[in-house]
Amino acid sequence: MPLDRSHIRRLSMRFDGTAHPAVEMDWVPAQPGDPLQEIDTPALILDLDRFEANLKRMNEFASGARVRVRPHAKTHKCAEIARRQIDVFGAGICCQKLGEAEAMLSGDLTDVLITNQVVGERKMRRLARLARAYAPARVGVCVDNVDVARQLATICQAEEARMEVYVDVDLGQNRTGVQTAEEAVELARILVDSPTLAFMGLHAFSSLAQHRRGVPERRNAADRGAVRTSVIREALSSANLPCDVICGGGSGSFPYEAASGVFSEVHAGSFAFMDVNYARNEPDPGAPAFEFAMFVLSCVMSVGGNERATLDVGLKTFATDCGPPRPTFPGWRVRSVTDEHTVLIRTEDGVPIRLGDKALLIPARCDGTVNLHDWIVAVRNNTVEAVWPVDARGALY
Amino acid sequence: MPLDRSHIRRLSMRFDGTAHPAVEMDWVPAQPGDPLQEIDTPALILDLDRFEANLKRMNEFASGARVRVRPHAKTHKCAEIARRQIDVFGAGICCQKLGEAEAMLSGDLTDVLITNQVVGERKMRRLARLARAYAPARVGVCVDNVDVARQLATICQAEEARMEVYVDVDLGQNRTGVQTAEEAVELARILVDSPTLAFMGLHAFSSLAQHRRGVPERRNAADRGAVRTSVIREALSSANLPCDVICGGGSGSFPYEAASGVFSEVHAGSFAFMDVNYARNEPDPGAPAFEFAMFVLSCVMSVGGNERATLDVGLKTFATDCGPPRPTFPGWRVRSVTDEHTVLIRTEDGVPIRLGDKALLIPARCDGTVNLHDWIVAVRNNTVEAVWPVDARGALY
Repeated sequence: MPLDRSHIRRLSMRFDGTAHPAVEMDWVPAQPGDPLQEIDTPALILDLDRFEANLKRMNEFASGARVRVRPHAKTHKCAEIARRQIDVFGAGICCQKLGEAEAMLSGDLTDVLITNQVVGERKMRRLARLARAYAPARVGVCVDNVDVARQLATICQAEEARMEVYVDVDLGQNRTGVQTAEEAVELARILVDSPTLAFMGLHAFSSLAQHRRGVPERRNAADRGAVRTSVIREALSSANLPCDVICGGGSGSFPYEAASGVFSEVHAGSFAFMDVNYARNEPDPGAPAFEFAMFVLSCVMSVGGNERATLDVGLKTFATDCGPPRPTFPGWRVRSVTDEHTVLIRTEDGVPIRLGDKALLIPARCDGTVNLHDWIVAVRNNTVEAVWPVDARGALY
Repeated sequence: MPLDRSHIRRLSMRFDGTAHPAVEMDWVPAQPGDPLQEIDTPALILDLDRFEANLKRMNEFASGARVRVRPHAKTHKCAEIARRQIDVFGAGICCQKLGEAEAMLSGDLTDVLITNQVVGERKMRRLARLARAYAPARVGVCVDNVDVARQLATICQAEEARMEVYVDVDLGQNRTGVQTAEEAVELARILVDSPTLAFMGLHAFSSLAQHRRGVPERRNAADRGAVRTSVIREALSSANLPCDVICGGGSGSFPYEAASGVFSEVHAGSFAFMDVNYARNEPDPGAPAFEFAMFVLSCVMSVGGNERATLDVGLKTFATDCGPPRPTFPGWRVRSVTDEHTVLIRTEDGVPIRLGDKALLIPARCDGTVNLHDWIVAVRNNTVEAVWPVDARGALY
C-alpha cells in the first residue's frame, strides 16, 4: 500500500507553497518491507505482535470483569491505532483535547469522548460544530462547572448540535472535577434540562492511583475513588438523575475499577504500548501483564573508544519526565540526555557498539514520547508492515 | 498579510486527502491584529520588542568583542526568526539536525552550519544533495571520526556537492568531538585532501559551561575549553593546516569565548528568547542582560474555589526537564504538571483567577518548548503582529 502523500511535512515546502525540486519531498523513516535495521533514525517503532497481544490480554480481562474498555487516544494520537482498538474492544475511544477529537473523527472514528472540560466560547463553538458535522457519530465531553454547563447548553442549542456530557468527579487530586454530591446534582440537572445535551453519567479519574508502586497502594487508592464515586451516584439516583455510565481509570488502576462494581467503563491508554514507568509498578497476578511494544530507534552518531556511544536522540525524541529511556540491550547505561544526544556508557563486558549501529530504547513514558513524532513505524518480525501518521501530534488546543 | 495556507495541519484532512467541509481548516491560535487576550490557547507567544532588544544587545556586545554571532536555530526552528537574526548579525545560522537545515534553506537562508556529525549513507547523501540543490548557499557540517570524514568526502564527490566541514572538539563533556590534537590533524588532512570539502576550522562547544550558576565557574569552564581549543589550533597550524574559524559557545558562556582571543564566532541560541533556566545563572555585569521574550499563553479550564486554578497546558505544551514554568503574575505557584494540566495554587493574597482567564507562563527551557508548538504568535504592545510556523518542529532526523 503506498503511503498517503497528504502527510508530507511542511518543511519540504518553499514559502510560496511549491516544492523545491531537489529536496526529499516525502521524508518518512521507512517504507513497508524495510528491515528494522534499515529504518532511518530517530524513529518511533511499534511492535505489532506485542501491541496486538496487549489488546487481546486487556480484552480477555475486561470481558471477564464485564466492563467496557474505551482506550485513551491521548497515548497514541493515531487514528489507525484507534480503529484497531475499536476492532478489539468495540466501544469508542477517549481524547483529552478537542484537537485530538477532530483528528479521530476525521479518521472515521464514530464514538469519541473528551475526558476534559472545554472552556471558552471559541472552543465550545468548535466542539459543537464538530459534533454536528460528524453526527450521528457520538461526541462526548466532561464538565465540572455550572457556568460551563450552561454555556455549553446554549451554544449546542444555537449550533443545533447534540452532545453527550459527563460530570467530572474529583477523586482527591484537586485538579479538575466536582468535590461534592450537591455540585454533581446541580450540574446533572442543567444537562438533563437541556434539549440538546444528554447527561451520560460520571467521569472519575484518579491520576494519583496510576503509579503507586505497590499493588495494595494502587488498589486502595482506586477503591477510595470508587467509594467516592458511588456516593455521588447514589445522590444523583436519589435526585432522580440516574447515571448510565461510570467511567475512568487508567493503566495502573483499571483492574480495581473493573472489580469495584461501580465502574462500567475503563479508560486505560498506556497498556497498549507500555513504558518503563508503568513497568516499575509491582505486577498484580490478578491483572493482565503487558509487554513493551513501543520503542525509539536511534543511531550511534559518535563513539569514544569502546566505552562511550552517543545516540542521535534526546529530549526532543522521548519524554524524560519519568527518567531516561532504557536500552533494550545489556552492558550499557544512559549517562546523560540532552536536546539531541543520549550518551551511553559501557558498564560491563557488553557487546561493542560501533559508529552507525542502530539501538532500540524503551521510553520512560509513552504518551509524551509519541507526541514528539510524526510517524509510527509498525513492525512485525523485524520487518516494517506499515507507517502511520501521528494524526493528532501537537493537537494541544 | 494573509497567513500561508500551505501550513494547514494535516489533522484537518480526511484520509483520502480531501478536507472535511465542516471542520475548521486553518486552526491557528490567532490572526494579526488580535489582542493578546483573544489568542486561543495553548499558544506560544513571542514578545517582539523584547526579542528585538535581545538581538540588539547581543549585537552590540559582539561588535565590541569583535566576534561573529551565528545564532542557533535549534532554539526557534523558525525560518522567519532566522531571517530576522541574519538582518541583525549578518552571519549565517546554526542547526543541530539535517532536517532543520532543510527547513532553513527552504526558508531562503543562505548560510547554514550543522553543529553535529551526520552519520550513515542515507543521511549523508541527503546532506550532499541538499548542499548541491541550494548552492551557492553555504552548507557546513561537523565531523569527529575519520571514517565519517572519508565517507562524506566520497559521497560529496559522487554527488558533486561542495561542503564546509569543521572538526568537532570535545571540551570535556565526552559526548562528541575529538579528544586529541593528533585526531584533529588526521581529520583536517582528510578534509583538505578532498576536492569538494573545505576544511573551515574547529567547532568546540562546552555544554557543561552553559548552566554553571556562578560567573567564575562559567568563566573558568569556558576558559578551560578555550585553552584546549587553542592547543589543537596550534597543532593544526604546525601541521600547515590553518583554521580560519574557531566557533562554539552558548548563551551561558559566549562572553568568555568572545573574550578568549581564540574564538572567532559564537553560537548562542536561547539568548533571543531567554528562559527560567538561563535566568538562574548569576548575571555577569560585563555581559549583556537578556529579557524574557517567549511565553506560553494558557487558559484556566477548571477552578477550585479561590485557591486552585487548573490551566490547559502541561507536559505536552512546555519542556519541564529544568523544572516547571514560572507564572508571570504574583500570588500563585505551580503545584503540579501533568500531560495536559498545570495546577496553580494560591500562595498569598494574589489576584483572584476566574474560569476562562488567560495566564502567561515563562518556560523553564525555551528549546524543548518551541519544539512542542506548530506556531509562534509574534506580539507587540499586546497585539498580534504575525503568526509564524515553527518550520522545523519535530525535525529530529
